[in-house]
Amino acid sequence: MRLIRSGDIPSRKRDSYRYITEPTTPQTLVGRALRSVRRVLIGRPLESSQAAHQHLSKVQALAVFSSDALSSTAYATEEILLILVLAGSAAYNYVIPIGIAIAALLGIVVFSYRQTVHAYPQGGGSYIVTKDNLGRSPSLLAASSLMTDYILTVAVSISAGVAAITSAFTGTRPYAVEIAVTAIVLIMIANLRGLQESGRIFAVPTYLFVFGMAILIVLGFAGWLGIGITPHRVVDTIPPATHGLTLFLILRAFASGCAALTGVEAISDGVPAFKEPRDQNAAKTLVAMGLILGSMFLGVTFLSQHYHLVPVENETLISQLTRVVVGTSPFYYFVQAATAAILLLAANTSFADFPRLAYFLARDRFMPRQFTLRGDRLGYSTGIAVLALTSSALVIIFGANVSHLIPLYAVGVFISFTLSQASMTYRWWRMDTARRNYVAMFINGLGALTTGVVAVIIIATKFVGGAWIILLLLPFIIVNLLGIRRHYDNVAAQLRLTLEQIRNRPVTWTRDSATVVALDRLNRPAIRAIDYAQTVSGDITVVHVAEEGDDANEMREKWDKAGIQLPLVIIESPYREVLGPLVNYIEELHRSKGGGTLTVILPEFVPAHWYEIFLHNQTAWRLRAALWSHPGIAVTSVPYHLKR
Amino acid sequence: MRLIRSGDIPSRKRDSYRYITEPTTPQTLVGRALRSVRRVLIGRPLESSQAAHQHLSKVQALAVFSSDALSSTAYATEEILLILVLAGSAAYNYVIPIGIAIAALLGIVVFSYRQTVHAYPQGGGSYIVTKDNLGRSPSLLAASSLMTDYILTVAVSISAGVAAITSAFTGTRPYAVEIAVTAIVLIMIANLRGLQESGRIFAVPTYLFVFGMAILIVLGFAGWLGIGITPHRVVDTIPPATHGLTLFLILRAFASGCAALTGVEAISDGVPAFKEPRDQNAAKTLVAMGLILGSMFLGVTFLSQHYHLVPVENETLISQLTRVVVGTSPFYYFVQAATAAILLLAANTSFADFPRLAYFLARDRFMPRQFTLRGDRLGYSTGIAVLALTSSALVIIFGANVSHLIPLYAVGVFISFTLSQASMTYRWWRMDTARRNYVAMFINGLGALTTGVVAVIIIATKFVGGAWIILLLLPFIIVNLLGIRRHYDNVAAQLRLTLEQIRNRPVTWTRDSATVVALDRLNRPAIRAIDYAQTVSGDITVVHVAEEGDDANEMREKWDKAGIQLPLVIIESPYREVLGPLVNYIEELHRSKGGGTLTVILPEFVPAHWYEIFLHNQTAWRLRAALWSHPGIAVTSVPYHLKR
Repeated sequence: MRLIRSGDIPSRKRDSYRYITEPTTPQTLVGRALRSVRRVLIGRPLESSQAAHQHLSKVQALAVFSSDALSSTAYATEEILLILVLAGSAAYNYVIPIGIAIAALLGIVVFSYRQTVHAYPQGGGSYIVTKDNLGRSPSLLAASSLMTDYILTVAVSISAGVAAITSAFTGTRPYAVEIAVTAIVLIMIANLRGLQESGRIFAVPTYLFVFGMAILIVLGFAGWLGIGITPHRVVDTIPPATHGLTLFLILRAFASGCAALTGVEAISDGVPAFKEPRDQNAAKTLVAMGLILGSMFLGVTFLSQHYHLVPVENETLISQLTRVVVGTSPFYYFVQAATAAILLLAANTSFADFPRLAYFLARDRFMPRQFTLRGDRLGYSTGIAVLALTSSALVIIFGANVSHLIPLYAVGVFISFTLSQASMTYRWWRMDTARRNYVAMFINGLGALTTGVVAVIIIATKFVGGAWIILLLLPFIIVNLLGIRRHYDNVAAQLRLTLEQIRNRPVTWTRDSATVVALDRLNRPAIRAIDYAQTVSGDITVVHVAEEGDDANEMREKWDKAGIQLPLVIIESPYREVLGPLVNYIEELHRSKGGGTLTVILPEFVPAHWYEIFLHNQTAWRLRAALWSHPGIAVTSVPYHLKR
Repeated sequence: MRLIRSGDIPSRKRDSYRYITEPTTPQTLVGRALRSVRRVLIGRPLESSQAAHQHLSKVQALAVFSSDALSSTAYATEEILLILVLAGSAAYNYVIPIGIAIAALLGIVVFSYRQTVHAYPQGGGSYIVTKDNLGRSPSLLAASSLMTDYILTVAVSISAGVAAITSAFTGTRPYAVEIAVTAIVLIMIANLRGLQESGRIFAVPTYLFVFGMAILIVLGFAGWLGIGITPHRVVDTIPPATHGLTLFLILRAFASGCAALTGVEAISDGVPAFKEPRDQNAAKTLVAMGLILGSMFLGVTFLSQHYHLVPVENETLISQLTRVVVGTSPFYYFVQAATAAILLLAANTSFADFPRLAYFLARDRFMPRQFTLRGDRLGYSTGIAVLALTSSALVIIFGANVSHLIPLYAVGVFISFTLSQASMTYRWWRMDTARRNYVAMFINGLGALTTGVVAVIIIATKFVGGAWIILLLLPFIIVNLLGIRRHYDNVAAQLRLTLEQIRNRPVTWTRDSATVVALDRLNRPAIRAIDYAQTVSGDITVVHVAEEGDDANEMREKWDKAGIQLPLVIIESPYREVLGPLVNYIEELHRSKGGGTLTVILPEFVPAHWYEIFLHNQTAWRLRAALWSHPGIAVTSVPYHLKR
């Protein structure tokens, strides 16, 4: 290809030319102002070729991909207790068994996903793994489950983070929703800036949180054993039992606590973002994350049981625990701040995962193709924006209340866990005997089985509380994904032309195809359009709609005197319609000309200032819109620009 | 002109043809549904030629044009008392003198306007009369004063009507604003249906109101004289005096009472709607209206003073007066209902006047030309809709409270009275001595003088309370009217071509003007656009924006194989912009081709269902919008319609 520059005119037929552009500059003041704002918020655009260079170390990756999982320590134990206290103080005997069961489940899931990471070094999200092994329908179930849960993760994490703030500073309580939405917008902007910078932003709070929780738990156990600080008693009385201590209640508490596992799959999705050797680094990070999460969760659960903490409306359990162990000391504020920070940023995991999943789905034509487009900083802007919008809506609808959101949460995660692990199990099974690894197959099988059972428990116990919403939503989403795919397939089938077909197409065009010029009065724009029409065709009809009889006669007289060598049709419209009669006439002319392509030429005048368009009937626009649905009619706007 | 039918092809050059249409039928389901709703609400469209046939008898015209004026009896006395009671019970001595002064003023105004009716049988609104005699600037002051007052009339009348309802049925009080807005919408629909039917609708409540008030006043005076019914005492105590009984307070009370005169000019505006002999019928109706209004106003004022009624928050004065005279009897409910009905319908006077004034202004190019267009039933739909919208906004802002609106009211009316009467005086003065009528000149001069003095009093006494808003608004409106006129004059000057100029224009066109086809991929719409381009020009450049390097190479290969005999320019856009680089390239090509008209041809595919457009990047639309501001670039959309 020959490279051409500004102003070069490509001349030789059949050749192709290259022309490379720099970022363009908007020409209006408003456009430039908007661009400046965008530059400040998001940064300078990156070239497409710079995409591959952003990779994370294990320490960074742990922060980026695990903030969601780790941060659930901040609310998981509280959600267990919230259910158990319905049965009164006797229920406290079950806190620790439930905690251990969840920790064991975590172990199984981590080891299952460890195998996924090795099997899919290019990124093993549930959608990809399920599509690869179980086929289209299960993969769409996995995808839609995950999408709902990503949105919920943002809403839940942000709401919990705001709860940490309002626990410490009670004056901020009325502004919970506003703070939450602001946080979502800030995280959205950070993600539009790109991944590497997010890595840097997220490392600090994640490690501060882990550090703070570690000290809190050590001090808590020391107090338990009578060493060091004497615990401060918190005097909350357990409310009277309203429910019997049934198996159902215990399972419901367990199901609520399973929120602790959300986000565990993030590392397996994000393998390509690791430094080489990707899969090994990712597997190590995954195990490290499992250990940290398990210890923190068990620590908080044991201490909450020991100190007999009671969940209350206006203060989080972590806040209570910290006050019991260290009092309202500076360290208390440090823990609250770190908790708030990691929770607000935990949402970031979803901001990494949702747009990527949407990209995969859009690439497979299950979602609008806008989700495949990369923004200035190479992030999938559409996915990022849609996630921010939907999660903000959830936060507003549920008033930034974690306990109201929890019944909807974790349903999707466990469905996708189950599908992902079942896919891995089947993958081992399909392999020829030489490569089949029975231990690995057992691990994934156990993972699939346990997460499947847990999914059933979660759905059954949370059904009335809100899980039904998700169960209605999932088929709705799947039907839409399939509908979009069907549409794109239809379109592709209708638009496709092989090179063979292009080469062999019949050449039937003539230089005098039927052309209509519609005009309002005989002024400069109209004459320009008439002259233009004569450059494109020799078969021209000029039409004019007359609303009153006088108008018709006046136009006819002028036309006769103007001496233009074209036929004029005056459409008399006694009911003062303009569009309808014009469209009807054009349709009839099109039919009687034999139905080839008819060109409608519209003079259009462009005022000097945008606000002046309201001072004119935009008949040309409305006519173009009306003709849009008419096959075989090409519409040409011939603009006439006013200078003042 | 030869009449042609559907499908006839006009063939002979230079001829003009007639083609007459019936009302068209929308082709989509939604379009047809909307049309059915419109038919039910507004009725079948009328032909333009049916316009002149709707004329009113004197009895009908009194109802249509006087409901505004007559209905002000319902609140004018109350507004006088509201001011006077600020000075305590001593102020009651001034009620009757103020009432008589206002009645005298009414007499002067009626006789002044009687002369306007005879002088302007084609309709003598203040704008027309002032323009005719004093010139542009005074006429625009009259017009803008009237427009603000028409809007206020709707807001005040509707609010007062709703007050009559909420006085009788206290349960409806919280819904005052909702009831008021609903009433405005219903009146709007009635007006969109057309004048004749409004005449029928409005006659009944107007005469019921006059009848009810007449009986009430007769019974009231009978009670006063000790005949018939014994009045029921209403025990409202006069609140302690907060203001001294100053001249300013008395003038303020007078100014508030002048609201009684609003609407008196309506008949002079509406002379053309009367049956022949128009001016005589109109003059008689005007005098009749003055007599009825004067008697009712004085009756209510005398009785209110006699029974020492005190204005209160939740009940209107008329409601109190009726309860005093007849108790809470069925007749009480009849009077309340008739009052509510006439007030709600009084707004109709403005719905007749505002759109007509806007039409006159738009015809003179001081307002957007949409105000000249007549709707299905020949009403000026834009004016009707704008009045409904702005008055609803006022009702909402002022919470449907009459006393809050009154300080803004009547300012405009008296400014326009003054200008109109001054114009009439000057008109007599200008006449040659033979035709000059000194008595008539004296009457109009007296009218101008008194209304001028009253205008000053109103502005001075209501200034702080709200009249300042009107005084700021009027110059703002006038500046805008002038700006719109300047714009239309500018446009006309730029677009105008004489027949001479058309005949003698240089014919410079060539059949091979520069043409660009922009395409996304080599599919059916693109090939259709390329083939279409070859019907209109022999100088074609095809352009394609490649976002990634691979895309560029793939396109180049396909192009080479497709064997299309046209040059292809591939614009490489490393920053993934599409629009900017394309526009830049087109601009450069346009410049290097010498700047004649360049045609940009855009393949555009039209999905089978409207909601599917969200599944595609509407690059064609966005490109067309971006090119709209580029002089000399014609844009052609070549549609490709999907079937499913």
